[in-house]
Amino acid sequence: MPRTHRHVVLAARPRGMPVESDFRVEEAAHPPLGDGQLSLENAFVSLDAGFRNWMDEGSGDNVLPAMKLGAPVMGLVLGRVAESRHAAHAVGDWVMARLAWEERSLTDASDFLVPVPRDTKYPRSFYLGVLGDTGLSAYFGLCDHAAIAPGETVLVSAAAGAVGSIAGQVARILGGRAVGIASGADKCARLVRELGYAAAVDRTRPDFAEALSHACPHGVDVYFDNVGGPLLQLVLERINEGARIVMCGAVASYSAQQPLPGPSNLFQIVTKEARVFGLMTHMHAARYDEGRAALGRWIDAGELRVPEYVLAGIASVPRAFCDLFRGANFGKTIVKL
Amino acid sequence: MPRTHRHVVLAARPRGMPVESDFRVEEAAHPPLGDGQLSLENAFVSLDAGFRNWMDEGSGDNVLPAMKLGAPVMGLVLGRVAESRHAAHAVGDWVMARLAWEERSLTDASDFLVPVPRDTKYPRSFYLGVLGDTGLSAYFGLCDHAAIAPGETVLVSAAAGAVGSIAGQVARILGGRAVGIASGADKCARLVRELGYAAAVDRTRPDFAEALSHACPHGVDVYFDNVGGPLLQLVLERINEGARIVMCGAVASYSAQQPLPGPSNLFQIVTKEARVFGLMTHMHAARYDEGRAALGRWIDAGELRVPEYVLAGIASVPRAFCDLFRGANFGKTIVKL
Repeated sequence: MPRTHRHVVLAARPRGMPVESDFRVEEAAHPPLGDGQLSLENAFVSLDAGFRNWMDEGSGDNVLPAMKLGAPVMGLVLGRVAESRHAAHAVGDWVMARLAWEERSLTDASDFLVPVPRDTKYPRSFYLGVLGDTGLSAYFGLCDHAAIAPGETVLVSAAAGAVGSIAGQVARILGGRAVGIASGADKCARLVRELGYAAAVDRTRPDFAEALSHACPHGVDVYFDNVGGPLLQLVLERINEGARIVMCGAVASYSAQQPLPGPSNLFQIVTKEARVFGLMTHMHAARYDEGRAALGRWIDAGELRVPEYVLAGIASVPRAFCDLFRGANFGKTIVKL
Repeated sequence: MPRTHRHVVLAARPRGMPVESDFRVEEAAHPPLGDGQLSLENAFVSLDAGFRNWMDEGSGDNVLPAMKLGAPVMGLVLGRVAESRHAAHAVGDWVMARLAWEERSLTDASDFLVPVPRDTKYPRSFYLGVLGDTGLSAYFGLCDHAAIAPGETVLVSAAAGAVGSIAGQVARILGGRAVGIASGADKCARLVRELGYAAAVDRTRPDFAEALSHACPHGVDVYFDNVGGPLLQLVLERINEGARIVMCGAVASYSAQQPLPGPSNLFQIVTKEARVFGLMTHMHAARYDEGRAALGRWIDAGELRVPEYVLAGIASVPRAFCDLFRGANFGKTIVKL
């Protein structure tokens, strides 16, 4: 067992969109294992735009404290228990946990640690994506909150992202008509061709608003929102009576240097008797098995495809994270260690 | 039976807050009763700030078309069937309906017409207030959507208004700790003394934000919002995990000449896994009996008080409406014809 490992620290607080130089890879000594602790040998780092939120000064909230300059960057990792002095976790177990971008983690298992099967027929990386928080966000958001009726129009923003690439497919499987929003004609074509979206709208088009109306001729019944920001205003103009809005992410505002004003037409929520659901998937951790079972069945049946954007090695973590904001990914972004 | 009656027409589109001169009382001839129609002799006009919404050019939506200049102003009335050529409504029946501010109405019963008991132990005006849309907004909003748990902090904006004056009491009856927001120290004192609010915060105080935190030391579990606008941003900063926001009205924006930007911190809805419910009470019309029965029991038990602000005569309708925006009322505003 090596006595040191590498991790990624916050070298500078990002100004607006994160850039590679905001991060630095460093060598760190393994801290000694204490009572009730376990150490993880991480196999994958998950890249999630939401963590940008806690990189700003004073950004701490009920979920996480603000990240510290020079300290390891927080994220989600998937690892194998390498050593354990914790009663509930044996060497060889696999877990997903909210820990740092690091090759090796030490934890007392309080860091939102979710067990992952030792033996699985799926690529293990799926447990950070389709069978992890992102796939389960799509599952809980659409099954629990949105409760899609057949034929309803389900609009998904950041539709080529980790959550969106699953959400549109889940919407289709549940009988909805999935419409995606993504940047660029190529991505939009892939959404329809590879993921079975009924339509996809390129938000870089100058006539985006009209194209959106055209793609949703009967209005929007469900909006699965990964983006927030000004797009929400456009969508609120198009919602139907009884619409459900699942707020899952707000990639538009994570990097905003000034707070973005919210939509001026929130009153649409009243006149359409709409409902808005904030979604923090880890709060549903007790039901992960149920969600994974459903998603697994859909994968097995060939109904659900799992696009991944995979880079290799801890040194590629900063680039993988920044790629999320450049929209370079199609599907879940993961670094294989 | 008189051959003419009086109604109130829209004389000018209000600029910002409505003023009396935006309205004009006119004499109108009774139109002849056609097949399938009934005529109502109205006993009360209900004044509801929300109707300000449809006074602007181009403001039509799924609920109502934009009101026309020179045409009778739309609102809610309570009347007795004076003549009927409609199978379902007999002379002597009482109904509430979405019709014009007028002494006499002609309708084919399609105008969101809700039957009201012929015989009732309550003042008949209650069927426009506590047993009508406003009381039922409080009931459905708090019982169905917010599902208050005992001890939860329920914050109510426009707490001295028609809906707010009932909502705070319903919250208390359901075991919540009701905190009201209203304009002026006098109103706030009355909220606590007369309606049983646990605390009330005067939004005209220079230190309003601190006073709000002080009145909600454990944060906000439920926000019953009658106001919208910038206040929502302050409240979002104070919501607890799992908070429910019932959006019932947006009196702050009805009169805004420019659309008010929404809160810049909507992401709080995600991180707190909050839920937002738009509330259009008339969509629950099939369950009005259930709601009225519950509210009636609370009135009978002396737990629910029913403040009303009553003016007399059709000519006082414009003033009564404008008083809503000046905050002159305490409780439900009604004009007795």
